[in-house]
Amino acid sequence: MNAQPLLIGGEWRQARELLGAFRAEDPTTGDPIGPAFPLCGAADLEAAISAASTVANELAAAPPERIAAFLEAYATGIEANAEALVDLAHAETALPKQPRLATVELPRTTNQLRLAAKAVRSYAWTQPVIDTATGLRAHRAPLSKPVLVFGPNNFPFAFNAVAGSDFASAIAARNPVIAKAHPSHPATSERLARIALVALQQAGLPSASVQLLYHFDYAAGSRLAGDARLGAVGFTGSRAGGLALKAAADKAGIPAYVELSSVNPVFLLPGALAERGTALAQEFFASCTMGSGQFCTNPGVVIVPQGTDGDAFVATATSHFAAAAPSVLFSRGVLDHLQHGVATLCEAGAEVLAGGTVGEPGFRYAPTLLSVDADTFLRAPKALQTEAFGPVSLLVRVRDVAQMAQVAQAFEGNLTGTIYSAIDGGDDTAWPTVAHALRPRVGRLIGNRMPTGVAVSPAMNHGGPYPSTGHPGFTAVGMPAAITRFTALHSYDNVPETQLPHELRDGNPDGIARLVDGVWRTNDLAHGAS
Amino acid sequence: MNAQPLLIGGEWRQARELLGAFRAEDPTTGDPIGPAFPLCGAADLEAAISAASTVANELAAAPPERIAAFLEAYATGIEANAEALVDLAHAETALPKQPRLATVELPRTTNQLRLAAKAVRSYAWTQPVIDTATGLRAHRAPLSKPVLVFGPNNFPFAFNAVAGSDFASAIAARNPVIAKAHPSHPATSERLARIALVALQQAGLPSASVQLLYHFDYAAGSRLAGDARLGAVGFTGSRAGGLALKAAADKAGIPAYVELSSVNPVFLLPGALAERGTALAQEFFASCTMGSGQFCTNPGVVIVPQGTDGDAFVATATSHFAAAAPSVLFSRGVLDHLQHGVATLCEAGAEVLAGGTVGEPGFRYAPTLLSVDADTFLRAPKALQTEAFGPVSLLVRVRDVAQMAQVAQAFEGNLTGTIYSAIDGGDDTAWPTVAHALRPRVGRLIGNRMPTGVAVSPAMNHGGPYPSTGHPGFTAVGMPAAITRFTALHSYDNVPETQLPHELRDGNPDGIARLVDGVWRTNDLAHGAS
Repeated sequence: MNAQPLLIGGEWRQARELLGAFRAEDPTTGDPIGPAFPLCGAADLEAAISAASTVANELAAAPPERIAAFLEAYATGIEANAEALVDLAHAETALPKQPRLATVELPRTTNQLRLAAKAVRSYAWTQPVIDTATGLRAHRAPLSKPVLVFGPNNFPFAFNAVAGSDFASAIAARNPVIAKAHPSHPATSERLARIALVALQQAGLPSASVQLLYHFDYAAGSRLAGDARLGAVGFTGSRAGGLALKAAADKAGIPAYVELSSVNPVFLLPGALAERGTALAQEFFASCTMGSGQFCTNPGVVIVPQGTDGDAFVATATSHFAAAAPSVLFSRGVLDHLQHGVATLCEAGAEVLAGGTVGEPGFRYAPTLLSVDADTFLRAPKALQTEAFGPVSLLVRVRDVAQMAQVAQAFEGNLTGTIYSAIDGGDDTAWPTVAHALRPRVGRLIGNRMPTGVAVSPAMNHGGPYPSTGHPGFTAVGMPAAITRFTALHSYDNVPETQLPHELRDGNPDGIARLVDGVWRTNDLAHGAS
Repeated sequence: MNAQPLLIGGEWRQARELLGAFRAEDPTTGDPIGPAFPLCGAADLEAAISAASTVANELAAAPPERIAAFLEAYATGIEANAEALVDLAHAETALPKQPRLATVELPRTTNQLRLAAKAVRSYAWTQPVIDTATGLRAHRAPLSKPVLVFGPNNFPFAFNAVAGSDFASAIAARNPVIAKAHPSHPATSERLARIALVALQQAGLPSASVQLLYHFDYAAGSRLAGDARLGAVGFTGSRAGGLALKAAADKAGIPAYVELSSVNPVFLLPGALAERGTALAQEFFASCTMGSGQFCTNPGVVIVPQGTDGDAFVATATSHFAAAAPSVLFSRGVLDHLQHGVATLCEAGAEVLAGGTVGEPGFRYAPTLLSVDADTFLRAPKALQTEAFGPVSLLVRVRDVAQMAQVAQAFEGNLTGTIYSAIDGGDDTAWPTVAHALRPRVGRLIGNRMPTGVAVSPAMNHGGPYPSTGHPGFTAVGMPAAITRFTALHSYDNVPETQLPHELRDGNPDGIARLVDGVWRTNDLAHGAS
C-alpha cells in the first residue's frame, strides 16, 4: 500500500501506521482521481499531537510580527498557486472555477488570512483591560496547547482545516494546529499545507506549528478530541460527527467549537409577497441551488402564507426547481445523507413539489422543493427540521402572521433566520411579531436578503444557539471575534511591569486599544496610574 | 413534615413534593439551628423552570434601566437588612461578623450588584460592533432562557446563588435565575431572596425573574442542569458535583460555567526567601488560615527551596500552624472532605509538620502544614495536588529554580499562581523561568501577594484552565466580563434601523462605546455610513 505523506513536525513523511488508503472522487462521474491518501492510525495521531505540543510554548512566545508575517506570506503563497489550487479543488469538489472557486472563495480565504494578520498586528483579539484602582491587568492569551481543526466538505479553501477561519484563528492566537482535512478534497488540502509550510519557514515560526492529517477512524478521532494535551477543537460538519467529538472534548474539559447543522428559516411576510413575490421566488431558487445548495446557511425552510400571493410564489418557485438540471454533489456520502433527509421530511408529511430524484452519472440530485402545511409542521417540528444538505428546501404554508410566529417558536437553534418585509412599510406590525419569536433562536437575523453568503466581517455571527453550534456566544467567521475562541483569559495581579505582556505595559507605543478604567484608550498609561 | 416555603413564580409557597427537610447547623457546636427547609422533588424543579421560562422573553425585552434599578434596589435592601443578614450568616457559617461578614463580604456583595448595574447602564457587556462596509451589526444579547445558579458554601453573600456574582451577571444580561442555595446557609439565602423579591417588584420586573430552591437530590440536579429549556448553568463548589452538572449540561448543549477546585501554587524564589522569609511565613500562615482556609484561592501548595533560608521559612511557618487553635469549618461535609484530602496527601508521601487533627465541639480542624520533597511530588503530582479545602497547605521542597519550573509544569489548571521575588532584583532571572512554566496553567498570575482576596475588578480573572474551571476563557468575578458568560452573540444583517436594538442604531445619544470599523467610538454613526 502506498499513500501520500502526512505533514507532522514540519516534515512530510509516510504514515507510520497506514491502516488504509483512499482517493478523491470526481463528483461528476464518481471515478477515483489523484493519488492515494492515508487513513492513518493511533501512532500517527500521537505523533501529530506530540509534535504540536512540543512547539506550543515556543509559538505562544513568538513575536506577533512573525505570526502576522506567516499569515500574510501564506495568503501570498495561495495567490501564487491560485491556478493549481483552483484546478485541484474543482476536480475534487465539482464547484465551478468561475466565479465560485477563483473569484469568490480563494480571494475570501486570502482576505481572511490577512484580516487575521491585521488583528494580530493591532492586538485587537487580546482585549487588554487595565484597572488602575486595583493594579489588575488582563488580556486574552494563547492556549499554549494545540488546536485540533476539522474542515468540512463544502469550502475547500475558506473553511479548509489548514487554511480556513478556524485555522487562521487558532494560529493568530499563537496556537499550533493539527488539521484534519476533509477526505473529499485531500489533494487541495495537501497543496495548501505545502504552501503553509513554506510560509512558516519564511516567517521564522516553528515548522511543527501546522500538522496535516487526512483521515482516521471515528474512534481514533474521538480519542484525539478528548486528549488532555489539546487546547481546543474546531469543527464544521455533520451533527452526528460534531456531537461525538464535542462529547469526547467536553469530558476532558476541552472547549469544542462545533458548527453542526442549520435549516435557516426564511419568513416571507404578506406585504413582501404581494409586492415582489415573483422576484422572491427567483431569489430563493438561486440561493437554494447555488453551489448545489451545499451551504451551512442554505435556506432550508421557507415560511409562506396561504392565499393567492403565497400560491403564486409557490408556483413560480416550483417551476424554477422543476426546470433545473440535477445538481452535482460533493460525494456519495452527501448524496446518501440528502436522500435520507428528504425521505425523513416526506415521512413526516412533506409533499414533493419538484425534484426528489437522483441523477447520473456521479453524485447528482435534482433541485428539490417540498411543501407542508403549518399544522403538520407544528405537530412534528423535529422531523420537519431535518437538514437535507443540498439543493433542497421545504415550504411551510401558514394561515397568518400569528401562525408564522408559532412556527418561528418551534425552531431549534439556527445559524440564521431571515424575514422578508414590504418596502412600502406594509409589514411593519408583522415584523416584530415574527422577529421576537425568531431572534433568540438564531445567530444572525437577516432582513430582505437570502442567508447564503457569509461576509468575513467583525460584526458577523456565523454561529448560533444549540444545536446549530455548541455554544451561543461565539462566531466561527469574522476577525477578531473568531480568534477569541482559541484563547485563555489571563489576569496579572501585582506583577512587575517588566514581566507584563507587551499590550499590558504602561507604555503603549503601538497605540493598542485598551480598556483602561472602563474607557477604551490608545495612549500610554499615565505615570504612576496603577 | 413542615418546611420553609420555596420562591417560585414570584410567590413563597410550600414545596409541592416535599421529599424531606433539613436544618442548618451551628458549625461551632454541630447543633441544628433555625427552621426546617425543604428537600424538594421533581415537581418543584419543574415548577421553577417553567415559571422562569415563562418570563424569559419579557425579561429579555425589559428596559435596561429597570434591570439596573433592580440591582441597585437590591443592594440598598441588603444594606438596610445588613444586621439581620450578618447575624444569620454568622450563625450558619461561623464566619466572624467583624471584619469578614459585615465589613468585607456584605459591602463587596452590594458593590458587585452596583457594578453590574453600572455595566447595564453603560451597555458595556453588550459589546456592540458595527461594520459599515457590510452593514452588519452585532452585540451580546440575553439568552432568553433561565440561568441555573448553584451557590457554594464559602461566601454566604458574595457568591450566594441569589445575590452573588453569577446571580448579578445572569440578571444583568436580562436572564431569569433559578437559584439553588447552598444548604449550609439556607436562612441567609431565604432572607436575601425576600429582599430580592421586593426589589423586583419595586423595579417593575417580572417577579418570576428569581426562584429560590434549597436542596434537591443529585439525580434531580443533573436532570435540571440538562433541561434544554435552560440557557446556562453557573456553579461554584466541589469538583465532583460540578463535573456531574457539567456533564449533564454539556450533553444538552447548555454552557456550564463551573468553578471546581484549585490549589493555587505559591512559589517562593530564593531571593525573596533570603530577603524576608520570616515575614513571608507569617503572611502565608495568615492567608492559609483566614476564614478557616475555606477560599477557592487558598494557598494550598507552597514551593520552597531547600537550604537554610527555606528551612527557616518552614520552621517559622510550622510554629505558626502549631500554635493555632483548631479552625471552625462550615459543615460536617467540609470536615469529612478535608480529612479525606489530608489522608490522600499523606498516603502519597506528604509528612505532617503541624496540625492534622480534628477539634471539638462542632466541625473543627487544626490548621495543618504538610511537606513533601519535589522528587516525590513529581512522581505523584496528581495525588499531591488533591485539594484539602480548609486551613491546610502542602510545602514542596525543591532543589533549585530549575526544579521549581519542573514542579510548575506538573500542575493542573489552577485559578491562581503566585511568585514571590526579591525586591532587590535578585530573582530577575529566576522569575521568567518559573513564570513561563506557570503562566499557561493559571487564570491569574500574582506577584508578591497571597492569592486570597479576589477584587471585583474588570481586569480580574476568577477562572482558569481545566480542571479549575470548565472553560479557560471566562471569569466568574468582575464586571462586565462575568456577565458575558450569560449572553448570546447576535448579528443583524440588513435589518431595518428601527428594528435594531438600542445600542446598534445609528444615533448614540447615550454615548455607548461601540467598535465601529475597528475603532471604539461613542458618537453617532455618520449619516448614511452603512
